[in-house]
Amino acid sequence: MGSELVTVYEVGLRDGLQNEKGFIPTEQKRELLDALVGAGLCRLELTSFVSPKWVPQLADAEAFARLVLPAAGYSVASPSGPATDGVSLSALVPNGMGLERALACGLPEIAVFLSASETHTQKNINKSIDRALGVIEELIPPALAAGVRVRGYVSTVWGCPYEGTVDPARAIAVAARLAELGCYQISLGDTIGVGNPRQTREIVRRALDVMPLESIALHLHDTRGTALANILAALDLGVRVFDSSIGGMGGCPYAPGAAGNVATEDLVYMLAGIGLETGIDLEKLIEAANVAERLVGHPLPGKVHRAGAFRPRVA
Amino acid sequence: MGSELVTVYEVGLRDGLQNEKGFIPTEQKRELLDALVGAGLCRLELTSFVSPKWVPQLADAEAFARLVLPAAGYSVASPSGPATDGVSLSALVPNGMGLERALACGLPEIAVFLSASETHTQKNINKSIDRALGVIEELIPPALAAGVRVRGYVSTVWGCPYEGTVDPARAIAVAARLAELGCYQISLGDTIGVGNPRQTREIVRRALDVMPLESIALHLHDTRGTALANILAALDLGVRVFDSSIGGMGGCPYAPGAAGNVATEDLVYMLAGIGLETGIDLEKLIEAANVAERLVGHPLPGKVHRAGAFRPRVA
Repeated sequence: MGSELVTVYEVGLRDGLQNEKGFIPTEQKRELLDALVGAGLCRLELTSFVSPKWVPQLADAEAFARLVLPAAGYSVASPSGPATDGVSLSALVPNGMGLERALACGLPEIAVFLSASETHTQKNINKSIDRALGVIEELIPPALAAGVRVRGYVSTVWGCPYEGTVDPARAIAVAARLAELGCYQISLGDTIGVGNPRQTREIVRRALDVMPLESIALHLHDTRGTALANILAALDLGVRVFDSSIGGMGGCPYAPGAAGNVATEDLVYMLAGIGLETGIDLEKLIEAANVAERLVGHPLPGKVHRAGAFRPRVA
Repeated sequence: MGSELVTVYEVGLRDGLQNEKGFIPTEQKRELLDALVGAGLCRLELTSFVSPKWVPQLADAEAFARLVLPAAGYSVASPSGPATDGVSLSALVPNGMGLERALACGLPEIAVFLSASETHTQKNINKSIDRALGVIEELIPPALAAGVRVRGYVSTVWGCPYEGTVDPARAIAVAARLAELGCYQISLGDTIGVGNPRQTREIVRRALDVMPLESIALHLHDTRGTALANILAALDLGVRVFDSSIGGMGGCPYAPGAAGNVATEDLVYMLAGIGLETGIDLEKLIEAANVAERLVGHPLPGKVHRAGAFRPRVA
């Protein structure tokens, strides 16, 4: 294995909340953000500058970003909050309009996205992969010129709901193109949670052939319970950046057990057990998952926030 | 990795149902058994000959065993059922009385059990580990003499709810003793689902030092979502026998997400993805999980029976 430090990239506020039914008021989103940062998470995706027409849950993108980025840099309201050094917030940006909005808010990082499969890209953003790459190609230079880092997402790498299995060579070619265009990191997504560790090894090995280890992140939905096993397979190959969602937020609230991203607290529990450092306090993270559960108003699929960290009972 | 054939040992009818609140009528248990065998499971734990006072859910142990073992050998009522060759049923046996009951029913296999931690053994079966081994030592010869195979369980190997971390050397010493006494296979249990892959590797390596690979099975509860990752770690070391429970049955029905054993369908989904053969039909297994969910009357924590096997939608 490589370094013993793992980056947990929290996407619950964006990828989690955008899949929740209701709109969570901005002040409550901030409460959750504070809890997450308070637990030690320092890389978080805050919101999305996709049209509110498509994602009404995140219609407060500007208001939320401006609330937590007063003038410059994230600061925590609570005096008992954590030191804010090194906390980096990001937002999803689909196009030039989104970029303008993100830059106006002073976000230090944005994320661009497309899918590894033609049909999913077409259905999701109404463009071919080629045209989506063209849009991204135009977005990145002004972002970099403004001093903003750009992260890239490639969805449906492990499988497409329309096309089935996706050719990993093709998926990694899309990722490599994002790296060439200036993305400092590419998050490879198992969007529909179908992956297995054998596939994960193949995908990571192919990625390592064309981009540096440090630029590879995994974004795994836990729809079939295999996310942590896939992460273990990737850890063995040296990958050290994983996206996750507090409480496993983002599954369908009407299908108990249907999962969103791998739950941050489950990921951190496993990493701590393996002996990999994340800088995250598991007990505070469990509190943050409880905040998330309260805000969305239904049980979340993560397990460690329910079972608790392991503490023996008094006999 | 070793052989490409993996044995999935179904414990839902015993370890699952004994943790459910209500009593499932014998005929319904048989319906579930038929669905499981119909899906291709051929090693199953049927029930427990522990006193009905302690496990009222399995108070029909004799009736159920006699129903499905008419005269000799399991047979399936439905003419559309599977070939029954090689289906082996087992039951938990705590003492001489339990053994007599099991032998009277004609079961081809029994299972004996104790914990790796002194406090858990004491609380669970009201004996020290030493005395529990003494009871088992007396049980095994008459079972073997009757032509019955004996499987052994060691609980709390990954952690004890009372003592915390358990010394793996000590846990494996208990397992090795069961092997010496005549158990053909020892199922090492993460009873409270606290394990991580690093621990799993250490435990399996220590077990391999003192017993043959073929005699090692893992029995992992998925309380903190790490069971499949732990299984992956064990697969890499060659382990090829895993206990599981259909639907993940056995968690507390009043704590959504609280999990029992790793769900059989999630395990089989991952194994199939890795390319390891189990002889199990995943679609029929999902049907069996749906039967289990209907019988217990509440959602079960397994994921694949809800998400389905991976099939692309028509675009």
